[in-house]
Amino acid sequence: MERKVVLSGMRPTGKLHLGHLVGVLENWVKLQKEHNCFFLIADYHALTTNVDTSDIYENSIEMLIDWLASGVDPEISPVFRQSQVKEHTELHLIFSMLITVSRLERNPTLKEQIRDLQLDNITYGHLGYPVLQAADILLYKGELVPVGEDQLPHVEITRDIAKRFNQVYAPVFPEPEPLLTEFARLPGLDGKRMSKSLGNTILISDPPDEIKKKMKKAFTDPQKIYKGDPGRPDICLVFTYHKKFNPDEVPEIRKGCESGQLGCVECKSRCAEKIIEFLKPIHEKRNYLEAHKDEVKKILLSGEERAREVARKTMDDVHQAMKLG
Amino acid sequence: MERKVVLSGMRPTGKLHLGHLVGVLENWVKLQKEHNCFFLIADYHALTTNVDTSDIYENSIEMLIDWLASGVDPEISPVFRQSQVKEHTELHLIFSMLITVSRLERNPTLKEQIRDLQLDNITYGHLGYPVLQAADILLYKGELVPVGEDQLPHVEITRDIAKRFNQVYAPVFPEPEPLLTEFARLPGLDGKRMSKSLGNTILISDPPDEIKKKMKKAFTDPQKIYKGDPGRPDICLVFTYHKKFNPDEVPEIRKGCESGQLGCVECKSRCAEKIIEFLKPIHEKRNYLEAHKDEVKKILLSGEERAREVARKTMDDVHQAMKLG
Ligand code: SF4
Ligand code: SF4
Repeated sequence: MERKVVLSGMRPTGKLHLGHLVGVLENWVKLQKEHNCFFLIADYHALTTNVDTSDIYENSIEMLIDWLASGVDPEISPVFRQSQVKEHTELHLIFSMLITVSRLERNPTLKEQIRDLQLDNITYGHLGYPVLQAADILLYKGELVPVGEDQLPHVEITRDIAKRFNQVYAPVFPEPEPLLTEFARLPGLDGKRMSKSLGNTILISDPPDEIKKKMKKAFTDPQKIYKGDPGRPDICLVFTYHKKFNPDEVPEIRKGCESGQLGCVECKSRCAEKIIEFLKPIHEKRNYLEAHKDEVKKILLSGEERAREVARKTMDDVHQAMKLG
Repeated sequence: MERKVVLSGMRPTGKLHLGHLVGVLENWVKLQKEHNCFFLIADYHALTTNVDTSDIYENSIEMLIDWLASGVDPEISPVFRQSQVKEHTELHLIFSMLITVSRLERNPTLKEQIRDLQLDNITYGHLGYPVLQAADILLYKGELVPVGEDQLPHVEITRDIAKRFNQVYAPVFPEPEPLLTEFARLPGLDGKRMSKSLGNTILISDPPDEIKKKMKKAFTDPQKIYKGDPGRPDICLVFTYHKKFNPDEVPEIRKGCESGQLGCVECKSRCAEKIIEFLKPIHEKRNYLEAHKDEVKKILLSGEERAREVARKTMDDVHQAMKLG
């Protein structure tokens, strides 16, 4: 298979949780074997919903440590912060002239965000974040963008902008394809969407004791109160975790739960052990990186250097196509 | 008087006309004696109303030749293209997070443009051009912005953004003051606003014969048809030009016109001669520059180098204030 350019990124939210690991990072680790990936720390995007940047650097480093510990290989895939490659903002400005306000206002994700965050008054940058995203992708001539169903409209905007640029100036950009990914969604410990703000997460970095403690509080089948009560694994959150972290024992757990022979306390404790086992190599790498933050920062700076090199080449093409001199 | 930082610029429209000379350039030449001026070729701004950039480089050079010939001293005041200093776009992106869409939609100049240009569907970049303008000014920590009455709302937006940044992050920016300038407006040869698209201009670069030819077609008092007819100089366009380019002879011209002794043909020819005389030193310099375009380009590159140096310092302050790392 031909290696393509893949662009993906995350906002720097600090330490990541198992949902990120299962939903995104495992996919990235797979993708980097097949394609030329660029992994972006979207620190400017973070400003669209919160202008407070006081923790943004530390959060970026913490997140990067989770990326690296989980198997992102920075030798293969440059890792870099948006804010350190000025060309993102340059391409963003040029693209801002190639898309109408009304096209952006029709963006369904934005509409949803406005509803969820109750923003009466969105900022100019918030309205334009799909334009920045288009710049993020096209700056590296990204050909594939791993997205979930809900982000398809963004890729559509990126394709529109690429098409428009190519038509007005010269064919510089590919029209990137969405790489629709069935993200395995790991629910939070309360069964809701896993999210730090809901306090229902297990962090990739949580030490074993913390994982055990958290797992004890996980929601289970409410009808199963005592050991002996028959349970319904398919509505139990812990069972979802077994399926992910303990696939071999799933049939036995199902039987034990449904028959009542397996109690929730034991079931949870076994699940916690499996998660701890799963995370062991990640923790080892994580601990090393935490103790050698200078290396992490060096990795980041080197990723930024390499990203900048590609970005500059693209901007040379752009300036030439536009005859800006 | 304390020297302040002044930021001013023009879109690269190519060769300039006498209206630019009288309305803007003469003011710049005066300003650069009193202040530290930065003169910007706003090539990105040009994209807000026309994405065709095929002539933008040549137009920038032609315009710059007119600037220099008219007395802009690039040793004192850096001259530079927006597109060659990436920091404009960087600051623009950051500022885009600090102003709401609705604030920009209230911009009266934008409303007017939408009406004039019949743009049903303005681009995202067009809506945001006061944000780019704010970046242009604040990137150099501009303290004074020469503007006409109609541009006051833009300076207000710049001040709002500066205030907001200083309050959210750290006091990096001055709040620039408008330097309200009574622009001497030289009307076009048909009495309307002088504008290339109306074909009613005398260009700074027009050779003497061209000036004479154009002046012959200038509108005069329609009641004065033959020499001998009394004229009304105050409604005559040619008289406005005499006031600017031939102030010493104004009383005599008035008398001759009102009495009928002076005919329009002679009056126009005298006016043309005075304009030619006025432009003589400018043409000499212009001819030299036209013949030495390499020098012009060198001047531009050097201005861009110096602008970039200041811009980078400001962006260092910005990154530090935002703790972007
Ligand atoms: S036994 Fe396990 S799978 Fe069954 S309800 Fe309890 S925790 Fe869930
Ligand atoms: S004589 Fe001169 S000022 Fe009087 S109307 Fe003719 S052109 Fe105008």
